[in-house]
Amino acid sequence: MKNDDIFDKLSELLSGISKTSSNNIKGTDEIKLSGPKNIFSTNNLNNTHKNMFSKNQDSLDYFFKPKSIAVFGVSEDPSKLGSVVFNNLIFGGYKGKLYPINPKYTELFNYQAYAKITDIDEPIELAIIVIPSQYVLDAMKDCAAKKVQAVIIISSGFKETGEAGAELEKEIVTIAKDANIRIIGPNCLGVISPSTKLNASFATGMPTTGNIAFLSQSGAICTALLDSAIPDNLGFRDFVSFGNKADVNEVELIELWSDDNDIKVIGAYLEEIKYGRDFIEAIKKCKNKKPVIVLKPGQTEQAKKAIASHTGALAGSIETFKTALEQNNVIEACDFNQMYSLLMSFAWGKRPAGRNVAIVTNAGGPGIIATDQIIKNGLKIAVLSEQTQAELGEILPPSSNIHNPVDVIGDALADRYRNSIDILAKAPEVDAIFVLITPQLVTQIEDTTRSIILASRKYDKPIYPVLLGKKHMLAAIQDFLDNKIPVYTDITEAVEQLAIHINYLERNNEENITISSEEISKMRNNRQFKSLSEEFDSNEMSTESAKGPIILSEDLSYKIAIEAGLPMTAQKVSRNIEDALEFAKENFPVVIKATNRAIPHKTDKKALYTNINNEQEFIDAYRKLENTIREIQGENYKGGIEILVQKQISYKEQIFIGANRDGDKNVYENNNPGFGHLIAYGQGGIYTEIYKDIVYSLAPTDEKSVLTNLSKTKIFNILNGARGNSPLATDKVVKAILAVQKMILLYPEIVSVDINPLLVTQDDVFAVDIKIFVE
Amino acid sequence: MKNDDIFDKLSELLSGISKTSSNNIKGTDEIKLSGPKNIFSTNNLNNTHKNMFSKNQDSLDYFFKPKSIAVFGVSEDPSKLGSVVFNNLIFGGYKGKLYPINPKYTELFNYQAYAKITDIDEPIELAIIVIPSQYVLDAMKDCAAKKVQAVIIISSGFKETGEAGAELEKEIVTIAKDANIRIIGPNCLGVISPSTKLNASFATGMPTTGNIAFLSQSGAICTALLDSAIPDNLGFRDFVSFGNKADVNEVELIELWSDDNDIKVIGAYLEEIKYGRDFIEAIKKCKNKKPVIVLKPGQTEQAKKAIASHTGALAGSIETFKTALEQNNVIEACDFNQMYSLLMSFAWGKRPAGRNVAIVTNAGGPGIIATDQIIKNGLKIAVLSEQTQAELGEILPPSSNIHNPVDVIGDALADRYRNSIDILAKAPEVDAIFVLITPQLVTQIEDTTRSIILASRKYDKPIYPVLLGKKHMLAAIQDFLDNKIPVYTDITEAVEQLAIHINYLERNNEENITISSEEISKMRNNRQFKSLSEEFDSNEMSTESAKGPIILSEDLSYKIAIEAGLPMTAQKVSRNIEDALEFAKENFPVVIKATNRAIPHKTDKKALYTNINNEQEFIDAYRKLENTIREIQGENYKGGIEILVQKQISYKEQIFIGANRDGDKNVYENNNPGFGHLIAYGQGGIYTEIYKDIVYSLAPTDEKSVLTNLSKTKIFNILNGARGNSPLATDKVVKAILAVQKMILLYPEIVSVDINPLLVTQDDVFAVDIKIFVE
Repeated sequence: MKNDDIFDKLSELLSGISKTSSNNIKGTDEIKLSGPKNIFSTNNLNNTHKNMFSKNQDSLDYFFKPKSIAVFGVSEDPSKLGSVVFNNLIFGGYKGKLYPINPKYTELFNYQAYAKITDIDEPIELAIIVIPSQYVLDAMKDCAAKKVQAVIIISSGFKETGEAGAELEKEIVTIAKDANIRIIGPNCLGVISPSTKLNASFATGMPTTGNIAFLSQSGAICTALLDSAIPDNLGFRDFVSFGNKADVNEVELIELWSDDNDIKVIGAYLEEIKYGRDFIEAIKKCKNKKPVIVLKPGQTEQAKKAIASHTGALAGSIETFKTALEQNNVIEACDFNQMYSLLMSFAWGKRPAGRNVAIVTNAGGPGIIATDQIIKNGLKIAVLSEQTQAELGEILPPSSNIHNPVDVIGDALADRYRNSIDILAKAPEVDAIFVLITPQLVTQIEDTTRSIILASRKYDKPIYPVLLGKKHMLAAIQDFLDNKIPVYTDITEAVEQLAIHINYLERNNEENITISSEEISKMRNNRQFKSLSEEFDSNEMSTESAKGPIILSEDLSYKIAIEAGLPMTAQKVSRNIEDALEFAKENFPVVIKATNRAIPHKTDKKALYTNINNEQEFIDAYRKLENTIREIQGENYKGGIEILVQKQISYKEQIFIGANRDGDKNVYENNNPGFGHLIAYGQGGIYTEIYKDIVYSLAPTDEKSVLTNLSKTKIFNILNGARGNSPLATDKVVKAILAVQKMILLYPEIVSVDINPLLVTQDDVFAVDIKIFVE
Repeated sequence: MKNDDIFDKLSELLSGISKTSSNNIKGTDEIKLSGPKNIFSTNNLNNTHKNMFSKNQDSLDYFFKPKSIAVFGVSEDPSKLGSVVFNNLIFGGYKGKLYPINPKYTELFNYQAYAKITDIDEPIELAIIVIPSQYVLDAMKDCAAKKVQAVIIISSGFKETGEAGAELEKEIVTIAKDANIRIIGPNCLGVISPSTKLNASFATGMPTTGNIAFLSQSGAICTALLDSAIPDNLGFRDFVSFGNKADVNEVELIELWSDDNDIKVIGAYLEEIKYGRDFIEAIKKCKNKKPVIVLKPGQTEQAKKAIASHTGALAGSIETFKTALEQNNVIEACDFNQMYSLLMSFAWGKRPAGRNVAIVTNAGGPGIIATDQIIKNGLKIAVLSEQTQAELGEILPPSSNIHNPVDVIGDALADRYRNSIDILAKAPEVDAIFVLITPQLVTQIEDTTRSIILASRKYDKPIYPVLLGKKHMLAAIQDFLDNKIPVYTDITEAVEQLAIHINYLERNNEENITISSEEISKMRNNRQFKSLSEEFDSNEMSTESAKGPIILSEDLSYKIAIEAGLPMTAQKVSRNIEDALEFAKENFPVVIKATNRAIPHKTDKKALYTNINNEQEFIDAYRKLENTIREIQGENYKGGIEILVQKQISYKEQIFIGANRDGDKNVYENNNPGFGHLIAYGQGGIYTEIYKDIVYSLAPTDEKSVLTNLSKTKIFNILNGARGNSPLATDKVVKAILAVQKMILLYPEIVSVDINPLLVTQDDVFAVDIKIFVE
């Protein structure tokens, strides 16, 4: 949301800023609010996340429950943005003190106006800045002088406009930091907190008080959401548009909300998550308390470009992001409408106890469509017990279907629906009920709606009304919304919502591994090498000037791998045939190949000989390989001929294990950007990229989680002995993946690791080609 | 839709049926309709599809443009189903003659009533039967006596209720057939034809006249569709609910509609397609004329069960159905709402010329979401030319984004939208425009809506308005609908619609192979074996009593394969080691295995020896194999030891080719049920079922189509030489697939073929394990 044009007009009005004198407050209502209540027990104020400011989260209370608010940029024109915000505060019903700031006026909307915030005698807890960007710095200085606690900067014209804007934003943040002022924004819609009747935004209208907390990097997503939520009666506890999030970000807000019992579900529109590991920590605090629903656009390269030009944010690897969310049971919404639907269904919906769905329908066709969708979404068609069927048989006519889907048939009045729902709601074999209504000749839509509403109140079992049609359905839809019952007009959408709900609940029961930054740090104390890059510098043969990440030698890689517990084949790096032959003789059959440094991309260059079974074969291959390396390296090469000899393994399958770091080498320290290393694993061999049979875990993960993930691959079936074959060493594959994790946690300076293949036999695994890149 | 309860009540009223005398017509309006116009040129009345009745499609005209209608089951109670239908005819504005039939009355709703249809003096073109099922047979007999042309049987209680109902339905059809009467129904909602003001149904309300033709096996799907279409002003040409489709079915209706220039799009809800090949022929007549949109539920086993209990229809293989649709560019809707949305977008929408989409938005966030969806759906973000960008720069403020997505920013009034759309509509690099509107503070939703409506009239380029929000958007949505512009409230849905549209148009340009039943029949005249089952009976060693399909011997399979042009390895079926050895000596290395009949599941039993390089190895393996076979067959086995010796091929990859028949062996003859053979192909080897890297073609298909399909597999990349390897004989793989097609067209008595693997080398392919099952 950019408001430059409005601001251009406003700036004219504001040209005399800080010149006129102060006035006294008048016309404000009596304060009825108690001071900011500390809603956080001391236990919850942990120190694992420290944002830009090392103060506790009480400071955020000033955004939601301020006793006094000053607004910069109010004018007599009610259509100007500052005036809109000021009037939203008044007409929203805010009960604290309000001060408009504008040197041109002595009174605005019946409130005494002030030229400068420092002119106000009373303390100001929250300032809202709605003036052109070039004046914001001065306004912030005034806020600092006034000892304001919190500032919402609605103005745009900062980081999202380029370097100059970013610089300005930085200056403002520095001033705020020095003055211990918290900032929401800039470039945002503002903050709405219906429970305190605070509409500190330029949104039209305020939703009802409810149990949703929502945060967004986009103001327009907020206005669209509110435009739906208000007529739908979908209520919110807190509603934050934080735009460029120069200070307060998703991490702090989610931490704050994780402990608020009045919040049942958290929604977030996020174009970028900078502090990935801190974000995950915040999410973990919501576990078993409330779902977090995230809409993260920018999953394609083109959309990433659009984000960069929109907010100046740089989006990271989408795989890392998605894995982080999936691993921590965050619900990812695929677009705006699905997010809205999810917020509603989690805010209002009941918890399904399981996956068994009963369908009540007055038409066969929609029942069949629903059946398809239920199965496709991993749910089950409840198998109705003899008793349930008998009970249904008693209340339904003979031509009905008393199996599931329960077809109350086209001439059903409300009573058949009501009685069927009663029976199914009591049936232990049913976990959720879909009620499909088509508008047939005698269908009593209103009465049926009432029956469903009453049943929803009476029973704990979730009931999903799905109304097909429009003309005769609109009133019923509103009835459901007015009674806070999620209602659907699309079968697929309804089924997806239930599936997401039950998936979320089931995943919530899973144990999550947590290795704290402290523990990771402790691991590193005893590592074999102090610094891989120093090791590289002192011991490695630097063949080219290292630009970007450098590849470690086979010897160093081998040592690190063994240290981390990764099984390797016996190997020898040699520069003379005598040493090599000695090793080979003890290990026939062997493989020989150029080392990583000698020829970086071996397989493409075919500098690789396999099945060497005796001395003669070895010598022939070695000489040929020497020649190949010499040819490729050219005359100028000074490094000598380096050849790797490995014991050849007779294997059954090949596995790929890789890891890529998000963030820099300090990512596992507190308060550093990035999500850490994404570990990828699955089918290996030369066709890894064709089969794409790869799954992901974000470090740190654990054995159980890796095994669960691996079981989603096709190669897992083969490892486990498909088609009557003996199972292979799957347990050791899992251990190898965890060894790679240990490697990158021991040495977070590793930018990426690539093991392809890890050879798998019936009893063992061996990494035979490992490439480690460090900074 | 079942109406037994209403009928129960009605049957009371109707107990005196056929007892009272006839009366004269009174109270009908003057007839303003001309007689049924022959809208079909003789050219189009081909004979490739003959339904149950061998008369031409003019007969269907009596359903849509009858000059006179008699309704069975009207009573004085207006809420009774027959009365509803009769009143729908009256109040729909039907201009022909109307006759209520009910022996209890002399007058009904101001029309003279008749005890029997035969009492009416004037000719009756259409009869509508709305009486309990037990009376329908007599009514049909009366219709036959009266020489009625067409009958709509709305009554339920037939095939869908079980065997007795099916029997009754059959009797009724026989009477109709003998009297040359066409039937729509039974168990249906009826027929609506807005252009002739005919509402011959019990639906409440009639949609406007439009360019959609719709048919449905479910009455409730019809009522739900109408309930949306009426407020949305979505118009229809013909609307047919045909329930059990005892006579008129989708094949005939689609053929009829394919040639009607007033119909722009055909929609169908089909739970079962019996005459698959005829259906495909009808679809082909729509090519380059109009899209056919099909919603086919019952894609899961559970839903198939629900269908069986709903309409008594048996759903066939869903893969066969989906392949048939996909191959013939039928658009498959995944649920009710998507079908509705597709009908609207094809009825009202403009044709995109290509995949390049421009986005105009007043907010960054939704623009990014749309970008993601555009890319994910295979569309492109249009790259705006320098000129377009310059033009946008002139009309937009500096902080706007003139790249795509074009961000007119939050304070945009209608003019910025209007001007941007003007520029993009003229830009040749843009094929379609998405206009995203979020309800921000100053957004002029009404004016912007008008601008988009005007632009949609002015330009041929499709413009997709997407409105995010509800409260401020409802009026705009209705404005778009009133102007027949498809409008969306969901970004993903809008993008999917565009993607489906352009995919359809592009696929429309593809050439489709057509091998007529006659040509297939001709192929068979020269086949090597008259009858495979006879051949089996006379020459094959019958080891077990053949229940279900029987497997052909290696020798017979080999001959059929060679006849069809499928390359096979050299092989020898032997019963003594001398013969076998003689063959082996000429072909070392060889493979030996038990024949299909000796041990049906070789690989599981390990009755297979490979890498036999010399006489001694051969003899050892042969003896072992003999013992294995003896063990498995047991003492009672009389058939002797049959062993297959094959030349061993050194191959690079393995391919799977299979075929399964839908329908019986006469499926390729005209007017027989079934879709024919589904041919499956892709990665072969023992892990075929794990990798599931398989694609499908329905026979008959052609080389180009097979290659296109095959290119969607992963194995195709490997065949084509991934990772710098030499490409393999991909062309011969395609030829082998076509050879399998030739085999099943030559011998349609083949129920299934299974070739796994087809070995692929750089230059050649060889089928080494082929199993052919015949009836």
